[in-house]
Amino acid sequence: MKLKKASDSLTLMTEIVLPNDTNTFGNLMGGRLMYWMDIAAAIASQKHCNAPVVTASVDNISFQNPIKLGNVVHIEAKITRAFTTSMEVYLKVWSEDLSRQFQYNSNEAYYTFVALDPNKKPLPVPQIVPETEEEKKLFDGALRRRQLRLILGGKMNPDDATELRALFVKD
Amino acid sequence: MKLKKASDSLTLMTEIVLPNDTNTFGNLMGGRLMYWMDIAAAIASQKHCNAPVVTASVDNISFQNPIKLGNVVHIEAKITRAFTTSMEVYLKVWSEDLSRQFQYNSNEAYYTFVALDPNKKPLPVPQIVPETEEEKKLFDGALRRRQLRLILGGKMNPDDATELRALFVKD
Amino acid sequence: MKLKKASDSLTLMTEIVLPNDTNTFGNLMGGRLMYWMDIAAAIASQKHCNAPVVTASVDNISFQNPIKLGNVVHIEAKITRAFTTSMEVYLKVWSEDLSRQFQYNSNEAYYTFVALDPNKKPLPVPQIVPETEEEKKLFDGALRRRQLRLILGGKMNPDDATELRALFVKD
Amino acid sequence: MKLKKASDSLTLMTEIVLPNDTNTFGNLMGGRLMYWMDIAAAIASQKHCNAPVVTASVDNISFQNPIKLGNVVHIEAKITRAFTTSMEVYLKVWSEDLSRQFQYNSNEAYYTFVALDPNKKPLPVPQIVPETEEEKKLFDGALRRRQLRLILGGKMNPDDATELRALFVKD
Amino acid sequence: MKLKKASDSLTLMTEIVLPNDTNTFGNLMGGRLMYWMDIAAAIASQKHCNAPVVTASVDNISFQNPIKLGNVVHIEAKITRAFTTSMEVYLKVWSEDLSRQFQYNSNEAYYTFVALDPNKKPLPVPQIVPETEEEKKLFDGALRRRQLRLILGGKMNPDDATELRALFVKD
Amino acid sequence: MKLKKASDSLTLMTEIVLPNDTNTFGNLMGGRLMYWMDIAAAIASQKHCNAPVVTASVDNISFQNPIKLGNVVHIEAKITRAFTTSMEVYLKVWSEDLSRQFQYNSNEAYYTFVALDPNKKPLPVPQIVPETEEEKKLFDGALRRRQLRLILGGKMNPDDATELRALFVKD
Repeated sequence: MKLKKASDSLTLMTEIVLPNDTNTFGNLMGGRLMYWMDIAAAIASQKHCNAPVVTASVDNISFQNPIKLGNVVHIEAKITRAFTTSMEVYLKVWSEDLSRQFQYNSNEAYYTFVALDPNKKPLPVPQIVPETEEEKKLFDGALRRRQLRLILGGKMNPDDATELRALFVKD
Repeated sequence: MKLKKASDSLTLMTEIVLPNDTNTFGNLMGGRLMYWMDIAAAIASQKHCNAPVVTASVDNISFQNPIKLGNVVHIEAKITRAFTTSMEVYLKVWSEDLSRQFQYNSNEAYYTFVALDPNKKPLPVPQIVPETEEEKKLFDGALRRRQLRLILGGKMNPDDATELRALFVKD
Repeated sequence: MKLKKASDSLTLMTEIVLPNDTNTFGNLMGGRLMYWMDIAAAIASQKHCNAPVVTASVDNISFQNPIKLGNVVHIEAKITRAFTTSMEVYLKVWSEDLSRQFQYNSNEAYYTFVALDPNKKPLPVPQIVPETEEEKKLFDGALRRRQLRLILGGKMNPDDATELRALFVKD
Repeated sequence: MKLKKASDSLTLMTEIVLPNDTNTFGNLMGGRLMYWMDIAAAIASQKHCNAPVVTASVDNISFQNPIKLGNVVHIEAKITRAFTTSMEVYLKVWSEDLSRQFQYNSNEAYYTFVALDPNKKPLPVPQIVPETEEEKKLFDGALRRRQLRLILGGKMNPDDATELRALFVKD
Repeated sequence: MKLKKASDSLTLMTEIVLPNDTNTFGNLMGGRLMYWMDIAAAIASQKHCNAPVVTASVDNISFQNPIKLGNVVHIEAKITRAFTTSMEVYLKVWSEDLSRQFQYNSNEAYYTFVALDPNKKPLPVPQIVPETEEEKKLFDGALRRRQLRLILGGKMNPDDATELRALFVKD
Repeated sequence: MKLKKASDSLTLMTEIVLPNDTNTFGNLMGGRLMYWMDIAAAIASQKHCNAPVVTASVDNISFQNPIKLGNVVHIEAKITRAFTTSMEVYLKVWSEDLSRQFQYNSNEAYYTFVALDPNKKPLPVPQIVPETEEEKKLFDGALRRRQLRLILGGKMNPDDATELRALFVKD
């Protein structure tokens, strides 16, 4: 299976916050944003593996700034690394008040997708070749994030999470 | 500020998976489920603090089983613990094929909400009194999950995360 | 066919009123509420008969109080009685302004569903065993409501509606 | 307040059944149809009273034929009679499979709306002048249906429902 | 293939502008109106050819007046002329503020649809017999509009557009 | 008022075709695509003029290939030229079947937007500096397209449309 570049999966999504996307403060609901991010990440994953995909997991997301009604939301998604049949997607979200020319960060996130064959069995996916400095950093961190996911999901013993353990234990 | 019971915030949401909620496999999209969970968690939070709330963060979510078109989704949300102006909500999601009488787990999750006053400033919220064994366990674990959120958000030094550190380091 | 308890079909649905659900007064449109009630009643019916169902009829509904944007709507649905291939569902709707801790009734209603087999032919459904006082009262009233439906649908002569007739004629 | 013709309020709505409007049989959900009917009836009411309106009640609706995905739904709404601050709307719904040139009835219904002034207080509405035979029949029947609504809503003693009582008691 | 009257395809659609249909000025978004017009025109086309149809093209549309939240939108669609396997639909859109009894024009447009057989191949459609003066004028103009479409689509040489050329060149 | 580059307004929108976006062939409805294009063009316009905008007109659109359920739609929007208070936006739409790695054109279009001040009066907008060959060609063609719009809207005499006339008359 041939390697693919991280940049081949780059996906840009642009949305306007409409009334039904907002809470009583007139700001974008967190759940609506996670829905859009899921679609952007699914497209990036399909660009990478050229097969249908399903959401396997979502890492911690923290929402930094309220996004106002009528503002524009930019979602950028890109594959960071592949693990046999799964892919980690890095998402960066920022927003804009175009009338006031004011741009602000919203959040970052990591979604993980699994590729499926026509019988809905997991399908091997190509590995990523990171090129830029940012892509290399994301590629390296993917291992640590994966260990955290496995521990949090009860599928790995913290003692075996070598990468993650180093955060807490300076040997 | 008077204490409140965890069970006072219990929220049950029931949804049917409609065509537009599904991916090409005819299964519920992860993003749509996170949207519904956000609304259920927002209601539980408002029941607890009796004020408008906004989503502050979402912990790792891992999706266990595909949820089919036409199946019923049950979302149960309940406050686990409060931290000055924020509340952690525990969500349990399970699904049902009512014709085949088949019930299956989908996922668990922790959403964190912040209460806001009319000027959109964070508002102190009541503390929780856990009553059942499960509520007590969720209350205790909330501290560890909060440390993980702070570390992942770059707002806490891993060395200070006493609760979390214990997972990796047996002194 | 074995009997089933009314409580086995109990369904709780919780919704927030979003901008697109409202009329020009910022209140929930009656039609949107009837849509949600239809889904809640369909779930309760499927819980009872474990087969796909379709809406056969809806009894008089009267809307008591306007439900405001951002308020929470609670819909409780439960089977009252079965008639060969149809089931009557009782729905109770109430709403809440969670910030002001103000709860108010919206309306009650009776929806009737028919169970269908894979060829879309009506399918016999189990009978109900009412247990509580309220369930017994609903079970008894179901006969009278059914007569009214049949008369209104032109399928029964008022003279034969023994139960209903008693309302008007004291012999 | 000047009288208005029933035909002045005539409203025609045409919709196509889309995937998200359907149940697992691929037929229009009853709740979606009641939502469309509510909007058609609200428009007819506003045409009559030239003021904002809210749904007060809906009479028994019985669904006759399943409406298929892709079929066209026609909704015709017209005021039958006014009662101080409320208006009864008669709705006739039929559907069409345009490829097979097959037209079929779906249902009839009566919705009641109340007109509101800017302070949300009920507003007197003009009376109707029925012109055609059908309009006259609908105008006359409106009184009997109103009595039934009041009895069902617990606001009228069956003994006082002179019009309705005649159905059951031949003096 | 038998001829059909233009009036046989007449389609009336009525919609209310809801919050999610509006831009930041509280007016109907142009794109939402074009979506509704597409559905109205598709229904008119199917009435004419009794087969499934797809949108082939849309002529210039110019939006004259903003349509306010809560106002009613009327869309009237009617076939003007057929061309082997395609049909031109004329749409007239006007709006109403029912409380102020104020009616205003929104826009006119021409949509072109192609009829398809079950293998998705273009299907011959009946020709139109225009009856009223307006229908005859629309029938005649259809040829000129078609030439403009073909030139704009790069499928016709301006020299061959006899009808259209006459607008610019007085021989 | 300072000049702005065409590329400053570049907007990329990415969407997946969901079930409710499709007609009975399982292909994207033309009206849904025009809705998405309207939003992309509105964002490009706001990027250019930094003020709220409304859709003024849409030029001929011709749909080339059906876009399938589950396929990805790419919409690219960019300002071509400004005219006092209006801006012309050029849109290019193409689609992708990511599993089969098959990319195909859908259509091109020109939308025109007007900038509005807080009193909803037209607002002068900056002029465009085209840089690439394609941008220069779009800038030049904008004059001819504008004349066509004015003639079609009955606001210009064909004799005065110097640019457009040259298409038909070789002097």
